Amino acid sequence: MTSDLQGVLDEVYEAVRPVMGGGSVADYIPRLAAVDPDQFGIAVMTTDGERFAAGDAAVDFSIQSISKVFSLALVMAGDGDEIWQRVNREPSGAAFNSLAQLEYKRGIPRNPFMNAGALVVADHLLSLTPGEQSPVLEFVRAESGNPEISVDALTAASELSHSDRNSSIAHLLRSFGNLTNNVDAVLARYVEQCAIAMTCEDLAAAGAFLARRGVRADGSRLLSSNQARRVNAVMLTSGFYDAAGEFAYRVGLPGKSGVGGGILAIVPDVCSICVWGPGLDGSGNSLTGMTALAELTARTDWSIF
Amino acid sequence: MTSDLQGVLDEVYEAVRPVMGGGSVADYIPRLAAVDPDQFGIAVMTTDGERFAAGDAAVDFSIQSISKVFSLALVMAGDGDEIWQRVNREPSGAAFNSLAQLEYKRGIPRNPFMNAGALVVADHLLSLTPGEQSPVLEFVRAESGNPEISVDALTAASELSHSDRNSSIAHLLRSFGNLTNNVDAVLARYVEQCAIAMTCEDLAAAGAFLARRGVRADGSRLLSSNQARRVNAVMLTSGFYDAAGEFAYRVGLPGKSGVGGGILAIVPDVCSICVWGPGLDGSGNSLTGMTALAELTARTDWSIF
Amino acid sequence: MTSDLQGVLDEVYEAVRPVMGGGSVADYIPRLAAVDPDQFGIAVMTTDGERFAAGDAAVDFSIQSISKVFSLALVMAGDGDEIWQRVNREPSGAAFNSLAQLEYKRGIPRNPFMNAGALVVADHLLSLTPGEQSPVLEFVRAESGNPEISVDALTAASELSHSDRNSSIAHLLRSFGNLTNNVDAVLARYVEQCAIAMTCEDLAAAGAFLARRGVRADGSRLLSSNQARRVNAVMLTSGFYDAAGEFAYRVGLPGKSGVGGGILAIVPDVCSICVWGPGLDGSGNSLTGMTALAELTARTDWSIF
Amino acid sequence: MTSDLQGVLDEVYEAVRPVMGGGSVADYIPRLAAVDPDQFGIAVMTTDGERFAAGDAAVDFSIQSISKVFSLALVMAGDGDEIWQRVNREPSGAAFNSLAQLEYKRGIPRNPFMNAGALVVADHLLSLTPGEQSPVLEFVRAESGNPEISVDALTAASELSHSDRNSSIAHLLRSFGNLTNNVDAVLARYVEQCAIAMTCEDLAAAGAFLARRGVRADGSRLLSSNQARRVNAVMLTSGFYDAAGEFAYRVGLPGKSGVGGGILAIVPDVCSICVWGPGLDGSGNSLTGMTALAELTARTDWSIF
Repeated sequence: MTSDLQGVLDEVYEAVRPVMGGGSVADYIPRLAAVDPDQFGIAVMTTDGERFAAGDAAVDFSIQSISKVFSLALVMAGDGDEIWQRVNREPSGAAFNSLAQLEYKRGIPRNPFMNAGALVVADHLLSLTPGEQSPVLEFVRAESGNPEISVDALTAASELSHSDRNSSIAHLLRSFGNLTNNVDAVLARYVEQCAIAMTCEDLAAAGAFLARRGVRADGSRLLSSNQARRVNAVMLTSGFYDAAGEFAYRVGLPGKSGVGGGILAIVPDVCSICVWGPGLDGSGNSLTGMTALAELTARTDWSIF
Repeated sequence: MTSDLQGVLDEVYEAVRPVMGGGSVADYIPRLAAVDPDQFGIAVMTTDGERFAAGDAAVDFSIQSISKVFSLALVMAGDGDEIWQRVNREPSGAAFNSLAQLEYKRGIPRNPFMNAGALVVADHLLSLTPGEQSPVLEFVRAESGNPEISVDALTAASELSHSDRNSSIAHLLRSFGNLTNNVDAVLARYVEQCAIAMTCEDLAAAGAFLARRGVRADGSRLLSSNQARRVNAVMLTSGFYDAAGEFAYRVGLPGKSGVGGGILAIVPDVCSICVWGPGLDGSGNSLTGMTALAELTARTDWSIF
Repeated sequence: MTSDLQGVLDEVYEAVRPVMGGGSVADYIPRLAAVDPDQFGIAVMTTDGERFAAGDAAVDFSIQSISKVFSLALVMAGDGDEIWQRVNREPSGAAFNSLAQLEYKRGIPRNPFMNAGALVVADHLLSLTPGEQSPVLEFVRAESGNPEISVDALTAASELSHSDRNSSIAHLLRSFGNLTNNVDAVLARYVEQCAIAMTCEDLAAAGAFLARRGVRADGSRLLSSNQARRVNAVMLTSGFYDAAGEFAYRVGLPGKSGVGGGILAIVPDVCSICVWGPGLDGSGNSLTGMTALAELTARTDWSIF
Repeated sequence: MTSDLQGVLDEVYEAVRPVMGGGSVADYIPRLAAVDPDQFGIAVMTTDGERFAAGDAAVDFSIQSISKVFSLALVMAGDGDEIWQRVNREPSGAAFNSLAQLEYKRGIPRNPFMNAGALVVADHLLSLTPGEQSPVLEFVRAESGNPEISVDALTAASELSHSDRNSSIAHLLRSFGNLTNNVDAVLARYVEQCAIAMTCEDLAAAGAFLARRGVRADGSRLLSSNQARRVNAVMLTSGFYDAAGEFAYRVGLPGKSGVGGGILAIVPDVCSICVWGPGLDGSGNSLTGMTALAELTARTDWSIF
């Protein structure tokens, strides 16, 4: 397969071209709203370590919610199944930032990828690794082999000044006893991990441990094979806001999207994939990214179904 | 009627005796949880200025949500109908501190007596009267003629340290653009007005302007007759958390209850009534207070229906 | 007051003229959609038996949900407080035909004036008075002294053929064990009572027992004074779909509206009022009717607040 | 793998033994409530046509919601993507028979496996294949090669007499214009397909077309490879009521459960699996069935993640 993978990526790039520039760039964060919408990149890293790319795969973008995959993996690596006492792993059927559902469920988020769940994970990770800086940054640097990866300070500042919705969620979690650290400290960590800026190439490399069944770039094990499998399962059922079913139906891979326009997708035992295009569809997922992944699985036998 | 009103109050006191000590004292604020549950007081102030009382009518208690009546009246006095652009006046059919409904209504609280609505009113009042102290305290002192009325600092501190739910509501309001001041400043004012400690006698006097159709104790006008009528209407439809219908059905008066166990009720053109008993029923209203008011309207022609 | 009441009604008629023809006629029932929107009538019947009217007060219209007042009164007359085991009396904060709330409350409707509650009342009334015809028709004929009042067969047929929403509610009630008769039989009764056609004059007369504290036109007692008071209380808190607070605020009277454009309002011990204008406002209440009642209470001392 | 598959099934049977008899048998249908809870069966059919089984794999049970997989496949075979205009394919996050969500979504069910979605599919299938009998029965007979498979008349009758909830859903769908046939006709078809009684062995065979990428037992094609993949994707995200995430996490296979205690699971290109045990866990899925499938994927490389 991988012999002609570069050709497949080139085909996918051409197939995506007609929708480039479509969709709407996230506008609630000024920094994101300023991104040029006509960009698109795709990168693949195989479990053998081969790398392939097409388009704007070397351009930095804000990883946003894709960071939730890394924080979840780090919490599971650090504290096993403890996190599942505090957050469920069911698809939500509600908006990513819904308070209603959280209230109804008495402070237990439906899954770790909704904002509420990611805040609980961030709180848990903060307890495991106190200190100034999120271990997520260190992790993605190590996995991609790129020590230059950094938090975009303007994005972080911009998000902190638009964080009333997340503050509301965090205080609600705390009112139910499901946030143990100070709200501001948790939000700072959360915003920091979301504001990490990376390229498709680096992100594909950083997520490759999930294709390698939990093994890190240096050969050490972050997660057991079972744990890696389970992160993939949560990605498939809950990784796409209110379009998890649509993604499973059209693409058929575990994945996680972010409002910066990136999507990380995993083909277990084969490769990790990162696509990026800033324009979002009505569900908040990258329009070109979704199209590219659908085209990619149509040209390969990678769909898990 | 008022000739034998003292006799009626004494009868009501006797009728309430069997349920004294019943219900549950609010326990989410330690200071409230420590109140002796076996107390009960009732006080009436007529539009002619006569005062009647029975039981523990001279014991201070925490007025809590009853303060929302005063803050609403002060906002209406200061800024006319402006507040109704920011809050509706419909009964909610949901818990007093529901976030789900607020989210669904995109940040417009259903009425000014739910916590969300009262926070919007507090925010509006803070904009109208900036500064350290809530004008509610000054107002109840002036109306009751008791300059000793004060904020119970322990209650206020206790509430501030248990304010995650209200912080969550305030941030959600702010995320919808319906809170203009700093969240902490609004919460401080809100907690301060709720922690005012007063007696039944003083509270009946402080609320008498609503029985006098808007005229204050000193003869000046706070609200127009129409405005006073309208505050009464909002009290009737929304003054009792999820038991507004029950109160209208059993008692038939505009009123507002607080989790401190107090209830302020208005008989337009006749009198204002304050009852107090710390034990709450399942809806969060004073068990003895509800009973007393039902007994009182059964013995008078005061029901408005 | 009543000496110049005719003059007041004439003034109200003039005050309403600018909004006549406004609003939207109910369109989900073809028969209602065909009504000429430029009509408006008002009628008052005092507890002394005097009658006043202005405008199109002698034109028949479909009473629709106003019939729910009569069915509730008849059930309370026949079976005391039993009905309150099956339906609450709280305002709903949701649409009149909401299934979500009913599901959440496990089959106990919030109040007897939502469709769900009215279906439970109709079911109870059917058990009390089995047979072909609803006792509501007989009751309004007797109270108004007009034996010609009848069910509009075309309206009833039209409603039966558009009754999927009500069928859904009825089956849901039955799934919770809160409907004892056959769904079709209950719906037939319900549709029949809603399709009664009456004039403002007759409807004011038919509702006058609530102003007379439960006493019927022939001097016999239908409800105790307390029961009549309580029906009034339920009307105030729940009589206007999602605009109960608005009506209490603007008008200040117990009342019940119907999508046919009629409103029945009660001034306890004084009079009953019926207004009618087919155009509905955004909440489903008569636009001219609401305006007329607000103008009326502004010109009288009838507001209960 | 399949060389020692019989040994694996025997191991799984032993691993399940400690929880046999646990859980609660569905009690809302008398016929289901009467089933002996101590039974457990498992059957596998490979894409090569090999068959393996252990335990009570030859005992008939009521397939209930598993039938929804067949009706969906038949509708897709008959009418391509048309059905997706009428039903979404997102996980619901709500109970399988929720009306609230359906009301909020204005009559478009979240997915074809909730009752609402399955009723829409049944309606569509009825339009495609009018007549007395559901094509589902004919299909499972043909695929399993067992012409004796039949509808359990007692179960069907029992369900029809307890169908108020489904009637409510069907009428609500119709009120939104999303049910075109008569409610009773749709319900009859729906109840009929749910009441089919089959063994694990026959059910594994009947579902094997999904492991064979759409190819029927006779070699003809029911669905395109893409369509089969997509049915599998919907099963994974929506096949387990409110435990889709749990199933993906623990088992990692597309599947569909029924309240009769059966589960059909698919390993694409490898095999179809049917497990059955009548006791249900808190989410309504077979307790022994879930355990068995988790044990099975732990012993094989069949998890798709």
